[in-house]
Amino acid sequence: MNNFVFKNSTELVFGKAVEEQVGEYTAEYGSKVLLHYGGGSIKKTGLYDRIIKSLQENKVDYVELGGVQANPRLSLVQEGIKLCHEENVDFILAVGGGSVIDSAKTIAVGAKYDGNVWDCFIGKGSITDMIPLGVVLTIPAAGSETSDSAVITNEEGWLKRPIGHPMMRPVFALLNPELTYTLPDYQTACGVSDMLAHTMERYFTNTPNVDLTDRLCEATMRSIIEQGPKVLENPKDYAARAEIMLAGTVAHNNSLDMGRETDWASHDIEHELSGIYDLAHGAGLSIVFPAWMKYVYKVNKPRFEQFAYRVFGIEPQFDGSDASIIKGIKALENFYVSMGLPIRLEDADIRDDRYEEMAKKATNNDTRTLGHFKPLDSKDIHEIYKLCAMSKKW
Amino acid sequence: MNNFVFKNSTELVFGKAVEEQVGEYTAEYGSKVLLHYGGGSIKKTGLYDRIIKSLQENKVDYVELGGVQANPRLSLVQEGIKLCHEENVDFILAVGGGSVIDSAKTIAVGAKYDGNVWDCFIGKGSITDMIPLGVVLTIPAAGSETSDSAVITNEEGWLKRPIGHPMMRPVFALLNPELTYTLPDYQTACGVSDMLAHTMERYFTNTPNVDLTDRLCEATMRSIIEQGPKVLENPKDYAARAEIMLAGTVAHNNSLDMGRETDWASHDIEHELSGIYDLAHGAGLSIVFPAWMKYVYKVNKPRFEQFAYRVFGIEPQFDGSDASIIKGIKALENFYVSMGLPIRLEDADIRDDRYEEMAKKATNNDTRTLGHFKPLDSKDIHEIYKLCAMSKKW
Repeated sequence: MNNFVFKNSTELVFGKAVEEQVGEYTAEYGSKVLLHYGGGSIKKTGLYDRIIKSLQENKVDYVELGGVQANPRLSLVQEGIKLCHEENVDFILAVGGGSVIDSAKTIAVGAKYDGNVWDCFIGKGSITDMIPLGVVLTIPAAGSETSDSAVITNEEGWLKRPIGHPMMRPVFALLNPELTYTLPDYQTACGVSDMLAHTMERYFTNTPNVDLTDRLCEATMRSIIEQGPKVLENPKDYAARAEIMLAGTVAHNNSLDMGRETDWASHDIEHELSGIYDLAHGAGLSIVFPAWMKYVYKVNKPRFEQFAYRVFGIEPQFDGSDASIIKGIKALENFYVSMGLPIRLEDADIRDDRYEEMAKKATNNDTRTLGHFKPLDSKDIHEIYKLCAMSKKW
Repeated sequence: MNNFVFKNSTELVFGKAVEEQVGEYTAEYGSKVLLHYGGGSIKKTGLYDRIIKSLQENKVDYVELGGVQANPRLSLVQEGIKLCHEENVDFILAVGGGSVIDSAKTIAVGAKYDGNVWDCFIGKGSITDMIPLGVVLTIPAAGSETSDSAVITNEEGWLKRPIGHPMMRPVFALLNPELTYTLPDYQTACGVSDMLAHTMERYFTNTPNVDLTDRLCEATMRSIIEQGPKVLENPKDYAARAEIMLAGTVAHNNSLDMGRETDWASHDIEHELSGIYDLAHGAGLSIVFPAWMKYVYKVNKPRFEQFAYRVFGIEPQFDGSDASIIKGIKALENFYVSMGLPIRLEDADIRDDRYEEMAKKATNNDTRTLGHFKPLDSKDIHEIYKLCAMSKKW
């Protein structure tokens, strides 16, 4: 186990009707709020009205900025920063999923940054202060509701990049599983794929002696795999929705990576896909992760045997072959398929070959490698994109 | 899953040599510190000197109060409160195990409470403020290093009682597994028993639909059971010491009980034992917990079957009998025995029968029941004490 520091001070408020407390929670931190949201589905469901009512009842003044898209854009972030300055905003309330929260986090950082906030994404600037923010979560997926990071797409060059800082965790996160009843199946499935990927990025490590966190990761993966299909079967299954919503938070609150080196190559490889094709992030991950596994598993076979056994119940081989490892990867693919997710590029209607371009972009033109389990250069990444397109018989 | 609020803002700093940062961390919060510790083992090991050096290097002034015993006493707490007032202490640094931390927490609360702090233990007063405190942990067991509660023994009547408040979590906790190398085997084993009990108090619930937290509890129990014997075998096994130390924190940081009703009857029943006989808490728990299980399992057999299967790998019976449940409880007893812990009162040289007296005290003279899995009155508790004395053939 490596030395580590863990601190996650977000107040997680979970369960039925908790969003009705939003005004009360917000009033503890701010008096002029930027209400940030997406395409307007919160207006259709009535959530918007309930939030406004709660803010008003608690005498919280607000301005609003909607329109956050999937793969949230820098241009809207800039608009938000401007609004914060003009309106003396002292708190940001994100109502939505990971895209809205990431956009809100970046506005919160940018409003206190002297310069272009994109600097902080490319190592030209650093985060020293931010406006505090709170969250009402509507899509369990990204784990951004208690995480310390955000991912934004810069339309100039369609660069999708992350930033992180301990300060960036929301001060509160209100999670009502009932708010997720109306999510389309595909979006639910993409969320499940994302939280599973967050756990796998932490699980696949070469750090020795990480028994407890291994088991905590396995617990989270098993629960996601158990509950995911239930949610698709009955979208109003409160119990299953609650498990999935909580799993999304646990998968990304950093409790699963205490003392472990993490990977994140698959996320970076996926970011190029969804950056270029505007594919849903979770759908990109269900294509990239199995391909990554096939490419890297030989680096640490026991870890993949353990994954197959403890997560999918596939007994280890005792003949020295890789059969159980392959079965484990196929079991993961089968899970994705059962959730209606793509596992090859063609399933997502991506048929052109921009592999080399994406591999170059992912490595910033061969100036960095991706991941830690096996550090990958642009040639490795090119091979992984090829595996994303290969026959399903693999 | 029940509605819940989870917030644990303690900064957990974990790994080799982290105690050397204590001055730096302390200086962030206070300038006049009460250094609180136990019987002086920290002086023998040199830890005391390293801490003083770090405080001095960071220009932190301090007063000290040692002498905390196992089952920490109210009289020393009162002394600490007096010292805080006299010396204008603005931060408390606890260096030790759960007893020292609980004593420090109670001093921290008492110093800001107008009246006798014992009021807060018996419902006559409530906690509204406290001096912040930090921890250097030397015994992995109680989980008090990030928990929001404390247990103190009042010598008047030898009443052992808990208090809790969200505010009571330490602001930082420095955990170096190397500091636990010198713990005697018995103390190590008692710590392992305590953290296992903390997980079981959360695990045995009748709250339905708690799949993820069930699995997280099981992960923690399996890791404790896997790593505990390794630590006894080789006390300087850093990897195993680290797993046990981290498990002690995870077991009691409230992440394992999100959305679940918890029990705590076994703890309360044990408190009467260790309150009267001054038995180590962990040793009392290894006697009480199996007895409690035998008395209550019929309330929810599937939960005990799941425990046997998922924690100890004992396959469920398919004949309607309780055989796998019994095997599970016996497997737990065998684990305790392998750690050198008592599983019956006679193993701890307790041969007199004060069961009725203890049962009455535990229920505050029949004015409350204990636990939630099966609420227990004094007659039930009397029966459980009898089971603590019964033949090992059970």
